[in-house]
Amino acid sequence: MIEVLRLGHRIPRDERISTHCALVGRAFGADGLWYSGMKDKGFENSVSGVVDDFGGEFFIEYVSDDLKFVKKKKEEGWFVVHLTMYGVGFEKKVGEVKKVIDSGRDVVIVVGGEKVEPEFYEISDLNLAVGNQPHSEVGALAVFLYEVCGLRKEFKDAKVRVVGSERGKRVVRVERMRD
Amino acid sequence: MIEVLRLGHRIPRDERISTHCALVGRAFGADGLWYSGMKDKGFENSVSGVVDDFGGEFFIEYVSDDLKFVKKKKEEGWFVVHLTMYGVGFEKKVGEVKKVIDSGRDVVIVVGGEKVEPEFYEISDLNLAVGNQPHSEVGALAVFLYEVCGLRKEFKDAKVRVVGSERGKRVVRVERMRD
Repeated sequence: MIEVLRLGHRIPRDERISTHCALVGRAFGADGLWYSGMKDKGFENSVSGVVDDFGGEFFIEYVSDDLKFVKKKKEEGWFVVHLTMYGVGFEKKVGEVKKVIDSGRDVVIVVGGEKVEPEFYEISDLNLAVGNQPHSEVGALAVFLYEVCGLRKEFKDAKVRVVGSERGKRVVRVERMRD
Repeated sequence: MIEVLRLGHRIPRDERISTHCALVGRAFGADGLWYSGMKDKGFENSVSGVVDDFGGEFFIEYVSDDLKFVKKKKEEGWFVVHLTMYGVGFEKKVGEVKKVIDSGRDVVIVVGGEKVEPEFYEISDLNLAVGNQPHSEVGALAVFLYEVCGLRKEFKDAKVRVVGSERGKRVVRVERMRD
């Protein structure tokens, strides 16, 4: 399993950024997203809406105590990657993360909000930077997952599917076979 | 030159997403960002603030008529890449875009807002998808630029610089030499 933990979600400030984090997670092979901060039904619904239409089994779940959550994951043997502009260049560690995944270990990728508690830098197995410049947790997550997992190709039970075209939009409604 | 055009910026809805687009552009080697939609001094200031502190020569400029702007770029010989979930898989075209850049041609990368006028699909040299799933213009731009340009390493005249660390944060204030 590869899961994302989005820290410190705020309404309304992070509504779209957090949604983009979740959808990037889904598109690049993560299994689901946990988030802390403010519980946000609207955020959960927009992600679930995409999953419902475009398929796959991506989950979104709220977690009240994010640090306790990560500690528990570690106890359960999960490998914790914290994406931060202050970390080590991720390109040096992609191989290590891939090996962890290939060994069958689960990975949780922590992406920050505005202020990240110092404990996350301590508890994480790796603090990795997609460049040491301020840019975007969405961009960092996308590039990191793209390198580690690549684009996900299969989305089970999709109702709609986009067929990539040179020009214009082609969307196919998928007919379901009855069991 | 590699520039980004962000279509249809809206206040307050797109404030953070557009800022992330600009900062991703800067971090992954673009020279600047144009945006259409609503003129937004706050957006411009947050991007300029980052450039001022972290260096480089990234510009941000408003353009009132985005379609006319792209037509003019084309007349001037620019190559136009439109990133859209409806496009052809970008991974098939990275080589072509790199060749265009190596030949010395300038490239403008168009990233959509909520609604993209059909003309952009027609006028663009390539309509490319970073996956045909709905996710994020920030994520798509990051992955596309990462593949085409890689991470930018040099930022001229930076006042502050982050030194990537295994744990914690290390920020260095850069002393300028007098001329």
